[in-house]
This record gives sequence, structure tokens and C-alpha cells, in this order.
Amino acid sequence: MQKIYLSNMPRQKAQQKFLAGARIARRVENIRTGTSLGRITAAPLFARLSMPGDHSAAMDGFAVLAERTFSANDQNPLQLTPGECLPVDTGDPLPPGFDAVIMVEDTQPLAGGGIEILAPATPWQHVRPVGEDVVAGELMLPAFHRLRPQDLGVLLAGGITGVPVLARPSVAIIPTGTELIPPDGKRARGSIPDFNSTAVAAYLQEWGAAAVICPIVPDDLGRLEKAAAQAAAENDMVIIIAGSSAGREDYTVHVIETLGEVFVHGVGTRPGKPTILGRIAGKPAMGLPGYPVSAYLSLEWFARPLICRALGQAEPVRERLTVRLGRRVVSEIGVEEYVRMAVGFVEDHFVANPLERGAGVTMSLVRADGMLLIPPESLGFERGDRVELELFRPAAELQGNLLAAGSHDLIIDLLATALKEQGTGLTLSSAHLGSMGGIAAIGGGQAHLAGVHLFDPETGDYNSPYIRKLLPGRDLCLVNLAYRMQGWIVPPGNPDKVENAADLALNKLSFVNRQKGAGTRLLFDYQLEQAGLEPADIYGYEREEHTHLGVAASVAAGSARAGLGILPAARAFGLDFVPLCEERYDLLMSDSFYRSAAGETILRLITTPAFQKRVESLGGYSMRDAGKLMT
Amino acid sequence: MQKIYLSNMPRQKAQQKFLAGARIARRVENIRTGTSLGRITAAPLFARLSMPGDHSAAMDGFAVLAERTFSANDQNPLQLTPGECLPVDTGDPLPPGFDAVIMVEDTQPLAGGGIEILAPATPWQHVRPVGEDVVAGELMLPAFHRLRPQDLGVLLAGGITGVPVLARPSVAIIPTGTELIPPDGKRARGSIPDFNSTAVAAYLQEWGAAAVICPIVPDDLGRLEKAAAQAAAENDMVIIIAGSSAGREDYTVHVIETLGEVFVHGVGTRPGKPTILGRIAGKPAMGLPGYPVSAYLSLEWFARPLICRALGQAEPVRERLTVRLGRRVVSEIGVEEYVRMAVGFVEDHFVANPLERGAGVTMSLVRADGMLLIPPESLGFERGDRVELELFRPAAELQGNLLAAGSHDLIIDLLATALKEQGTGLTLSSAHLGSMGGIAAIGGGQAHLAGVHLFDPETGDYNSPYIRKLLPGRDLCLVNLAYRMQGWIVPPGNPDKVENAADLALNKLSFVNRQKGAGTRLLFDYQLEQAGLEPADIYGYEREEHTHLGVAASVAAGSARAGLGILPAARAFGLDFVPLCEERYDLLMSDSFYRSAAGETILRLITTPAFQKRVESLGGYSMRDAGKLMT
Repeated sequence: MQKIYLSNMPRQKAQQKFLAGARIARRVENIRTGTSLGRITAAPLFARLSMPGDHSAAMDGFAVLAERTFSANDQNPLQLTPGECLPVDTGDPLPPGFDAVIMVEDTQPLAGGGIEILAPATPWQHVRPVGEDVVAGELMLPAFHRLRPQDLGVLLAGGITGVPVLARPSVAIIPTGTELIPPDGKRARGSIPDFNSTAVAAYLQEWGAAAVICPIVPDDLGRLEKAAAQAAAENDMVIIIAGSSAGREDYTVHVIETLGEVFVHGVGTRPGKPTILGRIAGKPAMGLPGYPVSAYLSLEWFARPLICRALGQAEPVRERLTVRLGRRVVSEIGVEEYVRMAVGFVEDHFVANPLERGAGVTMSLVRADGMLLIPPESLGFERGDRVELELFRPAAELQGNLLAAGSHDLIIDLLATALKEQGTGLTLSSAHLGSMGGIAAIGGGQAHLAGVHLFDPETGDYNSPYIRKLLPGRDLCLVNLAYRMQGWIVPPGNPDKVENAADLALNKLSFVNRQKGAGTRLLFDYQLEQAGLEPADIYGYEREEHTHLGVAASVAAGSARAGLGILPAARAFGLDFVPLCEERYDLLMSDSFYRSAAGETILRLITTPAFQKRVESLGGYSMRDAGKLMT
Repeated sequence: MQKIYLSNMPRQKAQQKFLAGARIARRVENIRTGTSLGRITAAPLFARLSMPGDHSAAMDGFAVLAERTFSANDQNPLQLTPGECLPVDTGDPLPPGFDAVIMVEDTQPLAGGGIEILAPATPWQHVRPVGEDVVAGELMLPAFHRLRPQDLGVLLAGGITGVPVLARPSVAIIPTGTELIPPDGKRARGSIPDFNSTAVAAYLQEWGAAAVICPIVPDDLGRLEKAAAQAAAENDMVIIIAGSSAGREDYTVHVIETLGEVFVHGVGTRPGKPTILGRIAGKPAMGLPGYPVSAYLSLEWFARPLICRALGQAEPVRERLTVRLGRRVVSEIGVEEYVRMAVGFVEDHFVANPLERGAGVTMSLVRADGMLLIPPESLGFERGDRVELELFRPAAELQGNLLAAGSHDLIIDLLATALKEQGTGLTLSSAHLGSMGGIAAIGGGQAHLAGVHLFDPETGDYNSPYIRKLLPGRDLCLVNLAYRMQGWIVPPGNPDKVENAADLALNKLSFVNRQKGAGTRLLFDYQLEQAGLEPADIYGYEREEHTHLGVAASVAAGSARAGLGILPAARAFGLDFVPLCEERYDLLMSDSFYRSAAGETILRLITTPAFQKRVESLGGYSMRDAGKLMT
């Protein structure tokens, strides 16, 4: 097999090539009107029948023939016999031979059963005419119209009980990879659950397509070729997930080339580069990258336009919002980069902070409030730059989105979920920047809250010395959130008998550290200093994780023998925990936020017994001072 | 049964009473993650497993133990035996005993199978750590979160294959009325198809509820009571459609009162007044008005908040837009009025024109681009006033919405559907104002296009004399759309042998006229004048329909023996047509619209042979001059 190199084709050009070279065929199906919500009309729809179908009484009263009443006036009352005036309720059809309704209030009953009136009726007064709502022959809806609830009502009113709609394009998804197992399969070492197919199918479904997830195909050229040929024969489009790059076992491009044609292999975007666009049997065929963020973005760029075109719909447009960048964002020249962002309204403007940029970090797409596009000719943006984002949530909602920065703690997550559960209208996005990063973010107006837990050996105090030094003279509030136990996270049974930093150095145990600026890293450095050790004495000192759970995961996987972190992280992985010290974990915020309604909500929440109980049940926490002002 | 009077309770107060007095119980169900798109999480979801589950190679290359490589440098190449370096592809789990990956580019293969390197590896270089995407124990999603495609991916990545979600509230819909038949039932005189239940169910479905449409119940107190009791026992909420007012056979309020409690009967809104809010067996119970527009609005005001609360969701908020009113809108003091509006961008601002206001005109909800709320203390708004609308379509889309005013013709409808079919990005909303109304709308900048067909007996010319007189000195273009045949619309076989206006007067035939300002009405007046007749000589001269189809419907229903109109309208109802004259039907527009891109699109469309063929096949049309400038 010949060596393949990926191109770096600009996204728009790749889109044009795909749209020009491949097309999803339009098919029409007839379905019952009652089940057509959200479907797209395949033809203009004209009313078959009128609604109402009869001239009907528009008031409660008596039906009359107007002509018969012309002589009535107040000098000259007119009496109508029972046969000349028939009682009708609103909505009743007008009896034959009658052409007007007199309101019951304008009549006097007669002994014999008729009525007396003092004014003539004009023809068709108080009559709801045939077809007032829908008249037969009328155009009710155009073609390519997405059916809404009121449309269903009107169609049925107009006698259209079955509707021609565009069939949902059938898109086959073929997951490939010898390491893949079904998403609910039992995981073993080296196995990867195929969660991408489910997410890709859900995206396609949202856009109006019908996704078919095919069985997993191992890295085998022949089997993949067979699966793709069959999928193309049975569906309107084929998407192969993974194997789209240029490695030893990346067969996707060969398969599409053999069965059809490849228009594009490699797109000048990050994430999303290893994308393949082509066709098989005249039908669009894609090779999606295996990394989830790449896969989902590539799907939106290239599959969505085809589906929208097939359904006669304009592509949905996301709301746009100009924000101030809370942090610098750098980018490589020559590639278009997509950065997931957390967005909040801090003080008087929208601020956005970049989230994890790895193409494998699906959580970044889950957490993202919006997306920043960095064009190929740009090296990125500086902190404070005003940039425009595509939003994933309405800007109105983001007005109530609190940005938490600083140290990571599970309590911040519980706070986020409690805000939602209690219907406060507030939400919370958090970035794990470490305590020092959090102080900087508050200083720069890039966050509402920062979790900090920085021990100052000189004073024996927490946090305040750092804040005084880093943000002197600022109106800030430091509010205690909790005390929490830090300790050594070690394998079950603590086989290496870790008690202190010296044990790590002595036994050359593989260690996993936290990132620079994290309070837990400073704590470890303090431990080293106390023990008279240097970073070079610790194997793995440079190895960084950004969260307590990340540290625990490394210990659980056996790649580290010890890390420093909190009890719930050890518990999450069934690990042992050797307590080291209780530390103070505070929330830093501006004085104005502390006094704001949102600030009050946070304060109320963390002082609620139910919330405190929930936190303490995690283990290793004490909420005895929660909500207390520490400065 | 005691006489009931409807109250006029302000909408907000009624909402508060209903929300305070009734609540949909929250139920939780566990479903498979793969089928959970769009559902609402019932609990915060923490990762059970990490993704990736192993430390994995982040590059193609060789796994090594970093410690073993520390001595390598370019002066001192290091050779690794095959056992000391294992080939790995991106994504492969790191073999046990190894802690770094060296990229294939940085290695030289050795004859014996090992490699030579010129630089040491640092521990954990090019290794994707366990849990980089999702780490066990991490909060992935909060409670009350609506699941999106990327969320499904992340849940499966985190080992969550089944999700606790809030059950869709089950809402029973009971259609009542002796005159009702199922929506696809055969219609007879006096029968009304129950189309409301389908539309109401679709609205509920859009908001996240599960609707159950119960069998139709006739106007019978006992049977309605039994049906309501059973529905309340089996569902989370009960909605009874119709019978909600205070007439002889309006049983709904009595039923809710007998089985439970009525909080509100009568709301101070138009439409929507005859609404009942209460509860049965502790569950919310509503009586909806029978008129569709009333029913659907009332449902949104009162049922939607309950459903959103049960699902922990904020109520969706419609986009708002400030527009200039194209016509005066009057309102009654003391009631809140909701007026459906057509919205377009004319010249340099958004203009909105009111649509039909009858509570029975479902088509007004279908055609509406937005809604104007007139508060109770207001008498309405003047033409030119700036008012804020709630939009049914995005403002961005409305920028491309053309407003057609003036005379009604089926070609305008075909134009609307062709604009959509051809993906022009333009849409078209039309108001039936008659030719004179259309000229006024163009003059006032309230529409892009107006259909006009006004014969001037003095000059024998069409349209131009009127436009010169009504809009002197304006830069306008008059473009021919078609010639069309006007004639008498009469029952099949023309039993009354109608040939001219004199026949109508002579035989005192019941006539149906068009509204004032309609070209067809002027044509009829001209016919009367020619025959030496007066309006008083015609029985039904005052009876007005706003469209050709409305006229034909009246003739078809037997309530008129003749009307004046166009051939396709007669055909739509299987009626006879006696040709009277061919008339010119033009489109009036401003010169600037004529030159605009949208104007060009319209011109291109109406001169397309396919479009012309489609029009001419309707019967009675000639497109011989379509697109020709007539002034």
C-alpha cells in the first residue's frame, strides 16, 4: 500500500468540493398528519376541504331568513312563528333556508313558541362563513416547510390526513478499530468503547437524518471494504469512524478510493485534520477522525450541509457574541483552529476563557458555552482582546453563567449541580487553573469565583498572604468553603508504606504531580523542603495532572505509586489514602460579586445544611466555617 | 345547573394561581444512554470509568522506560534491545513496565531489531494519560440537564450506559363535543373534525411531555365526568378541549368542580378568554377553549410553565424584535390582546402588519411571523408606532421575508412556495388587503409587493390611473404578473343561467360580494353600472368575502347562488364558471425594490417557463406579459 500524506485543504474549499461532488438523493414518503411533527413537507399543501364546512352560528340565538325580518323596527315589532326562527348555539350549522342569526338577547319569546324582534336582520349577520379558517383550494403550507404543531392542526382542518414529507436521509455509521468494543461492553486493557457512533448518530438525528449504526469492523482492509460497500448500497450516505489518518492500519482512505472516489484527505483545521471526503456508489462517503472532538466538528462542517440541502433547509445558525478574552489563546499559522470556551458575564461584560484544547477531550465540548474560531492567518489572540464566539447556549442564559476559576474541588461541581437543581437561573462553568491561576483570574476580572488553598509557611495562614501580595489594595472577599484533608493517594493496602515525601525519594517510587500553580503542588514542594529534598530526587516530579481525580487515575492505572490529593479522589478509584494535613479551601471573589444577588445565592447555598451534608458525605471535608468571611 | 359567568382574570394572576395550586409530579425512569437524546437528567452524573482506561501512546513510535534512556545524547547514541523498545501505534495502551514513547522519526532501526536513539526520553512523554477525556468520579453532567449528542458520547465514555432521566409528564387530552368526529373521519353536515387534539398533543410533545389523546366525549355531563376522572387517575395532567365557556352545553367547568377544584374560569385575554384552570385528584386540570387560536395560546400560557417546572427547565424565551406597525391595531381596554403579525424588512426597517384576528382562524397562527401583545390598559397602536414583537421565526430569517399586500391571487401563493423550493433564502408572507389596500401599503412602505387589478372605465387602462392618482410622483414600478379570466362562479350546470348582473337582480339570486377596495368588487360595481342597477337591487351585496376561494366556498355551500371570481377558485369546489372578461393583474413595487437582489429574484422566477407553465395549468391564466414593465 502506498504511503499517504494528508493535505491541509482549507475548510471552505473542502466543503465546496464535497457539496459539488456528492449529493444525498431526495426521497418522498407519505405519512399520517398526526405523526408528522418536525418533518419537512415535500410539496406545497393545498386544503382539500373547508373549515368550517358549513355556515355556522357565531352566537347563541335564532336562525332566521333575513328577508323575512326587513319590516321589523321598534315602532313595528315583528313576530316570527316557530318555523321561521330556529334556536341555534354557537358553532351549530345554519339550517337550510336560513341566512342570519339574531342574538338571543335581541329577542322576546312568544307564548306560542316563536319570537318577537324589534330590528331587522341583515343577511349573514352573526354567521361564521364556510372556510373562515381554511378554505378548500387554499395554499396552507409551502414545500420544504418544517411542520409545527399549529401546522398539523391546519392540515387536518383542511382535510389533509396524510402528508408527503421528505424521507429522513439514511446515514450508515461504520465504527472501525480492532480495539473497539460496543459502548456497553466489558472493558479490558486496551479496549476502547465505541461511544463515538452513538454521539454521531445523535447529531445526525438532530439534523433530521436517520442514522444506522453498523457492527464494529476491525482493522482489516477486506472486511472494511465489504462493510462500506454494503452500507452504501443500503443507505443514502456512509460515514466511517476512525482509520482516517495515514498510519499503518488506517484503511479508510483506501476503502473509499477503491469503492469510489476521494475528493479530500486532510483538512486545514485543528481539531479535525484527518477527515476524508468522497463518494461511494454515487453517495457521499466520509472518513471521520477517531478523536471525538475532531469527529463531531468535522461531522458538522461536512455532513450537516449535505443533510440540510437534502431536506431543503438552511443550515442552523448559532447565535454570535462578542466577548473579552480572559486568557491568551495561541494558534499555529496556516491552520484554522477551533477553541472551546467557557463564557460568563463578569462585572459589566462577557468574558470567555479557553477550555482544554485536546481533540480527545470530549468533556471540553460538553463544558463549552461557545467556540472561538482562529483563522489560518492568525497566531491567536491576546488576553483582553475582543473576539466573536459562536454560542452553544443563548447569550441571555450566559448572563447568569458564573465562571469559577482556580483550584479544582468536587464541591465546585456540587455547587454547579445544586444551582441547577434549585432552579436559581444561575449556572456555573469552571476552569481548572490551580489556586494561583484563580487569584490571577479574579484580579483580571475573568472569573466570578476562584477556589484557593495556598498555605503560607511563614505565617502559618492560608490564602490571605498570597492575595495581599498578588492583588494588593483590591476590594476582595475571601469566603471559606470547606476544610479538606490532603494526603497520599496510594494503591490499596499502601504496599510501599508511603508516609511522607522521604519515602518516595528513598524507594524511588514513581510519583504523579499536579500542574504549576496548584495549591497541592505547593504543598508537595513544602513537604520536600521540610524533608530536605529536591525535585530531582522524585521520579516523575515533572509529570503533571490537572485534577485530584487525574492523580488518582494514574495511581489506579499503576503508572504511579503515589500522588498527593484529597480523600474522595482516592475513594473514586478504590485506592488507599494516607492523611497528611487538613487544609483550608476558600472562595475568592470581588467585593461587588459578594454583594450581588448571585453572590448571595452562592452564600445561601453553601450554608444550607442539606448541601453541607452532601459535601461531608464525600469524605474528608468539614463545612464548619462554610460561608465565613476570612478577611 | 347554576348559571356561570366567566371572570376576566389577568393572565399573570391566573398563571400564579395555577402554578400555586397544581403541580405535575416528578417521576424518574432509567433508560439506555443511546436513546436518551433530548431527555432531562434526573440526577448529577459522575463518571464510573475513565477514558482512556489505560495510559496510551499519543504518537506512532516505540514504548520505552525513560530511566533506561537517560544516558542518550548526540555524542553518545544509545542502543535499545528489542525487549527494551516495543513498537506502538497511536492509541495503543502502553505496555507494562514502560513509561514513555519515542516518536518513530527520532529512532534508527538496528539490524538486530532494536533501535538507536540520540536523546533521552522524559518519563511520560508522548503518553496520553488515563482519564484524559473523562476521569472516573468526575461530574460529567448536572441534574436537570437536557442531553445533547456530545453528552451521550461523554456518558458512554465514562461508563454510564443507562441514565436516570425525568419521565415525560403524561398529559391526557379529552376532546369534547357532540359535533366532533375523528380528524380523518368522513365529514357530514354539522360535523367538525377534532384537529385540535393533534395540535395540542404536538405542542405538549415539543415541550417534553407525552400526550395521550382520549376518545371523543359527546356533550354529556356524566360521560365527561367519567372520562375526566379516569384520565386523572392514569395521567399526570388532564386537558379537556372545548365546553369551557358558559353556554347551555358547556360542561367542562362543572366536571372539574365536581371532581376537584376550579381556580380560574375566564382569563382577561383575547383570544383565550374561556379558559378553565383547576385540579382533579391533586393533578393539574385545564379546560381549553374550542377555538384553535385560543386553545393553543392558552396551552402555552398555562400548561407549558407546569411542564417546564416538572422538567426543571426554564421556559423557552422567544426572540424579540422592535418593528414599525404597518397598520393601526385597535384593542379593547381591560383585556390583554394577542395579535398575530406578518413581519418583513422593507427598505431600511422591520415592518409588521396584523393578520386575521379571529380566534377561529388557525391559518393566522400558521402565517404569523410574530405576535404583538397589547396590554390591558392600551387601546392599541397607531400606524407607524414602534412596537416590540415576540418572534416565531428568527429575525435573521425575517430579513429575507417579503411582504405581499394587495389583491389575493393563487399565483402569489405559488410564488411563496417556489421561493422556498428553489432555496433562494427568501420567503413571502401575504396579507389580503385588496388592490386599493395594496397600493396604500406600497405607498406607506409597509410591503414589498402588491397585487393590483383595477380597471379604469374612463381610460380603459388597468392600474396605472389609480396609482398615478393615489401615489403621485413616486418612484414605482408596475410589473405584469398575468392576465386572468374573471367570471361568474355558479353551481354546477349554472341552474339559474347567470350571464350578467341583470340576471342576479331579476331573479333575486343570493349573491356573495368581495370586500371594499377589492378589484373584483370594483369590477362588479362596474357591471352594475353598465346594467343600470344599484347595490340595493342585489340580495347579499353587503356580504363580503376576502378571497376568491371564500366566494366559491359560499356558492358551493349553497348559501349564495353566484359570486364573481377567477376560474381556479370555481374549479377548487367543482363549480361552474361563466367567463366575463380577461383582466390584467400586476405587481406594484418601489423602484428600489425592483432593482434589489430580491426584486431580481422575483422577476427571474415569474419569467421562468416552468413557473409560467405551473400557473397556466391552474386555468384561466395567461403569462404572456409576465415580468413586463407596464409604466
